[in-house]
Amino acid sequence: MATLVLLRHGESVWNAEGLFTGWVDVDLSATGEQEARRGGALLRDADLRPGIVHTSVLKRAVRTANLALDEADLTWLPVRRSWRLNERHYGALQGKNKAQTREKYGEEQFAIWRRSYDTPPPPIADDDEYSQVGDRRYGRLPSELMPRTECLADVVDRMLPYWYDTIVPDLADDRTVLVAAHGNSLRALVKHLDGIDAETIAGLNIPTGIPLVYELNDDFTPRKQGGEYLDPEAAKEAIEAVKNQGRK
Amino acid sequence: MATLVLLRHGESVWNAEGLFTGWVDVDLSATGEQEARRGGALLRDADLRPGIVHTSVLKRAVRTANLALDEADLTWLPVRRSWRLNERHYGALQGKNKAQTREKYGEEQFAIWRRSYDTPPPPIADDDEYSQVGDRRYGRLPSELMPRTECLADVVDRMLPYWYDTIVPDLADDRTVLVAAHGNSLRALVKHLDGIDAETIAGLNIPTGIPLVYELNDDFTPRKQGGEYLDPEAAKEAIEAVKNQGRK
Repeated sequence: MATLVLLRHGESVWNAEGLFTGWVDVDLSATGEQEARRGGALLRDADLRPGIVHTSVLKRAVRTANLALDEADLTWLPVRRSWRLNERHYGALQGKNKAQTREKYGEEQFAIWRRSYDTPPPPIADDDEYSQVGDRRYGRLPSELMPRTECLADVVDRMLPYWYDTIVPDLADDRTVLVAAHGNSLRALVKHLDGIDAETIAGLNIPTGIPLVYELNDDFTPRKQGGEYLDPEAAKEAIEAVKNQGRK
Repeated sequence: MATLVLLRHGESVWNAEGLFTGWVDVDLSATGEQEARRGGALLRDADLRPGIVHTSVLKRAVRTANLALDEADLTWLPVRRSWRLNERHYGALQGKNKAQTREKYGEEQFAIWRRSYDTPPPPIADDDEYSQVGDRRYGRLPSELMPRTECLADVVDRMLPYWYDTIVPDLADDRTVLVAAHGNSLRALVKHLDGIDAETIAGLNIPTGIPLVYELNDDFTPRKQGGEYLDPEAAKEAIEAVKNQGRK
């Protein structure tokens, strides 16, 4: 039986400031660092010992993994990284204030951009200061794969090949696998695992820094729908807090 | 042209206390963390941008890489780890005080254990508190490959397959490669690169936290014997300090 552990990165500096982040490579805040360490402490206390960790190529996920693994005395774990685990690309909204965007474009448009399954925000211009075109870490990514904006459906499409080709073989290799990533790349994965439809996924939030554990069947489907958080009470509270983002 | 950058981990807690460490998984000291960050700052200031990092599976090397890469804004780099880059296994000396060992066994024996090319210290017992037998991170290492003690010649033997099979292909892939490792695994690599004989390598020390840069020819031999330290003055001073370890 394989075990999949999902860990959403802790609060970033831009989360704290209420800005849309997406692919902008913002660091963890001090609170985010604490959340990451707590995530590692929860792993350790639950005696959950991953054999490998996968991260996005964004600093806030990489550092969350590093801090959590230090805390769990698993600093030595093998690591793989992929842009396919990155946060949803927020298009032209990257760098914009969430509350101001809500005010400027109205509740309905704001909700569509944040939670519509298949309507992406307007694409970001390549010369926008928050575009990632030209960033060396994507230098080997063919131009046609480089997103300028994404809806959650796009994230599912680009994340799934990594799930099937890289994470599943690690799980099949009899390992507990830790994935340290982002709100939307993890929602995309959870949507796939739990077979959630496009409408229902809009209401699903994943809290930061609390490991979400899926025991998997031999065909890599969850034994239990929704998995289990290592700290269910804290997860419940945090989920409520995420829902209220962008509200004053 | 490929570029190889070697970085020896910063001071560990046991370096500071003057104990033989080897494969014991001791963390960096606060000084060691600073050295690691300085190593990253030197990379950044020299505009040296590795495309991948290799580390041992020991915490002090992994954390040195993590801290240096954070400092150089390269947190996202792909990473590979291998026991083949570990420090020399110090056998029964692991956990022993260097100065006391020198006093107990005499200058000559001490020098042989520290610097003989082909005489290892006595092997460590599997039930010694500082043995790594049973450590989960070596769970997939066939028992006959698991060292109980090593001389530098043993380190060369187990390190070279990793050089040829994993690091060289990354270099051939046109990348600048960073290797964050240990005094003796790096001495083993430098011995190979520079074609140093068994006698001369005894006198070669690599300072902590100062990147050593080798520009390589197409056949992966150094363009310049010995490479170049990014901070040659600091390297010179540090090399002197290493020579005096175990002296009161």
